[in-house]
Amino acid sequence: MIQYDLAFSKNIKAMKRSVIRELLKVTQSPEIISFAGGLPSPESFPIEEIKKITMEVLEKNGTKALQYGATEGFPPLADELIKLMALDNVKIGRENLAITIASQQGLDLVGKIFFNPGDIAIVESPTYVGALSAFNSYRGKLVDVELDDDGMRIDILKKTLANLKKQGKKPKFIYVIPDFHNPAGVTLSYERRKQLIEIAKKEKIMIIEDSPYRMVRFRGKNIPSLYSMDKEGLVVSLFTFSKIFVPGFRLGWAIGPKEIIDKMIIAKQATDLSTPEITQHIAASFLQKKLLLPTVKKTVSIYEKKNKLMLEMLDKYMPKKKGVRWTKPDGGLFLWVTLPEKYDCDKIFTKAIEKKVAYVVGSAFYVGGKKKNSFRMNFSYPSMEQIKVGVKRLAEVIDNEIK
Amino acid sequence: MIQYDLAFSKNIKAMKRSVIRELLKVTQSPEIISFAGGLPSPESFPIEEIKKITMEVLEKNGTKALQYGATEGFPPLADELIKLMALDNVKIGRENLAITIASQQGLDLVGKIFFNPGDIAIVESPTYVGALSAFNSYRGKLVDVELDDDGMRIDILKKTLANLKKQGKKPKFIYVIPDFHNPAGVTLSYERRKQLIEIAKKEKIMIIEDSPYRMVRFRGKNIPSLYSMDKEGLVVSLFTFSKIFVPGFRLGWAIGPKEIIDKMIIAKQATDLSTPEITQHIAASFLQKKLLLPTVKKTVSIYEKKNKLMLEMLDKYMPKKKGVRWTKPDGGLFLWVTLPEKYDCDKIFTKAIEKKVAYVVGSAFYVGGKKKNSFRMNFSYPSMEQIKVGVKRLAEVIDNEIK
Repeated sequence: MIQYDLAFSKNIKAMKRSVIRELLKVTQSPEIISFAGGLPSPESFPIEEIKKITMEVLEKNGTKALQYGATEGFPPLADELIKLMALDNVKIGRENLAITIASQQGLDLVGKIFFNPGDIAIVESPTYVGALSAFNSYRGKLVDVELDDDGMRIDILKKTLANLKKQGKKPKFIYVIPDFHNPAGVTLSYERRKQLIEIAKKEKIMIIEDSPYRMVRFRGKNIPSLYSMDKEGLVVSLFTFSKIFVPGFRLGWAIGPKEIIDKMIIAKQATDLSTPEITQHIAASFLQKKLLLPTVKKTVSIYEKKNKLMLEMLDKYMPKKKGVRWTKPDGGLFLWVTLPEKYDCDKIFTKAIEKKVAYVVGSAFYVGGKKKNSFRMNFSYPSMEQIKVGVKRLAEVIDNEIK
Repeated sequence: MIQYDLAFSKNIKAMKRSVIRELLKVTQSPEIISFAGGLPSPESFPIEEIKKITMEVLEKNGTKALQYGATEGFPPLADELIKLMALDNVKIGRENLAITIASQQGLDLVGKIFFNPGDIAIVESPTYVGALSAFNSYRGKLVDVELDDDGMRIDILKKTLANLKKQGKKPKFIYVIPDFHNPAGVTLSYERRKQLIEIAKKEKIMIIEDSPYRMVRFRGKNIPSLYSMDKEGLVVSLFTFSKIFVPGFRLGWAIGPKEIIDKMIIAKQATDLSTPEITQHIAASFLQKKLLLPTVKKTVSIYEKKNKLMLEMLDKYMPKKKGVRWTKPDGGLFLWVTLPEKYDCDKIFTKAIEKKVAYVVGSAFYVGGKKKNSFRMNFSYPSMEQIKVGVKRLAEVIDNEIK
């Protein structure tokens, strides 16, 4: 027999199955009300429009839509995305854009083009679990900086960079999720965005701006994106259709300085040759027909209602006085509940499952899983009824726990 | 200004844009007859069936087909693929299968789970250019073994392994394209397959069997796959729908020992979370309706005709007596033309373009681009008329060159 272990790379040995995806399997049972997933609401999917457009694409352009395409992406889709970005004050050309297998591939390509094993990147604490796994897969060393209700703590970032400098170390990039953070649900304030750009400029460090939820704002005013605020070519931003159109197409895009996008495309060529052509044709037509913004509007109104209800139920039932607190997101799909430090939400998870309700353990979102007193709740996928019943169930579990 | 070069990883610095994809841009001009691409014939695409099935999928199962899916792939598609593999004498379960973004992602994941920088793999000489780029992207060190009309030269493989052993080195795997090799068009004989499996068993080395063309046989009898011949869990095989269904879905699958597939799935999670769900639903239904085999049959009959014509035209016009020879594939999409050693097909390419005909330079398929006296010709994409006119044009160019 062959000993496979002897053959595996150090990279794969450093990787684990996604905790969330494994937990999701536990929470599949129909009697469990799950706030664990990160799924968009299927009510928001424009199925009829997709049907119609798919027929048109296959009728008019079938042989092209079913053929190989360019690594950079389908040019008419790129042009539509350039127009979409312009609505958000971002001026780019084709050379600044790569179409990807959703934003997870953007994270993978960022890892691939920047990390040698041991190279440092700054991430938020907590941060997106999929970024942790993409960066870990290149054995990047992640140094985390705490966040609060206004996003990454810039004072701590400064200290962290100064400390690294003393050790002769420089991060390859700073990874942030400025809008409606996953998992924390917070938004980086305008003031901190300015400071972050200043620091990146001064220290000559790239910023990776992960923006899957930016268009999903249901409260307050838009804050300019880091990409739009940067004049020095410091920012790469990652986007996805998963939360504003449909996740089942796995379509996203990365924008950035042409030197970086060029490397991402070279890396992508070796990874999968190109993004599927058919779904790009459909998405391009969907945008050309001006259907995206109405779809986003509908999605946002659904999430606004669900978020409002979840906050009301939390207010009503959660044992707030005992030091339990949660974030109040202005958009996105998630909020973040924190218990007093001594509680272990990995352990409480089992009790929640017994009471037929589920969340994602917060430890999954920390470098090295170091904090355990938080969990993430999703409000986009469960129904209004499930939110009502589920939050009550969960509040009972927590209340029991921290008596 | 930031100096991006300082930030890039060694991996990306080791990568180049695919020569072929760059060449293809030159050959896009409509008056050039191109044998350069690797595109399947659009005549083979079952557009009407795809239209019908897509409507059904969106009507019956729209919210699921547009939602996130499992990293392993859509289970009903996995089950159909298991049945398809059984027709080829391969008995596997779900735990032996991962659905991928076509076989290029299979190659990328193989690179990711096996290579530390500098690790060795054996490849054929020439070999598939996309494997070279996937493996180079992890800085695998590729040691090549010549092939002839019966595929990889096992005598040379033995010597190569003995030499490496003397240096205390052991390859992570042996990468082969046994059926209708890209670019060489040759097929590994049954005798050599047996020897290869024996060597892998004795030396405890994995085999990566790249099988994109296996079902596209238009002459002769099937030779058992390496996967079906192996009893020791030594083989990982990579497949794609690109050449037997449509490339625009970017759907493929990898099969192997469960320990390896498990690692590939973990790596894929970090790479793109999952393969698009919609196209997997369509492909699953296409297979359930027993439409794949008739489609393959139609494709094979088209390629058989085109291949026959190309061989006739080569026989008629190519200056054979001057030492020009070419392979006579029993399947697949490509044949391989070799000139006497002193000729440089990179240079002749420019002259071919002047005469409005294109091939892919053979050097792209060699480790380090070391041999230049060959080129690859594709017969699946050009029309019968283009094959007639194009081969004649090309023969004139070659004839002029080697006078």
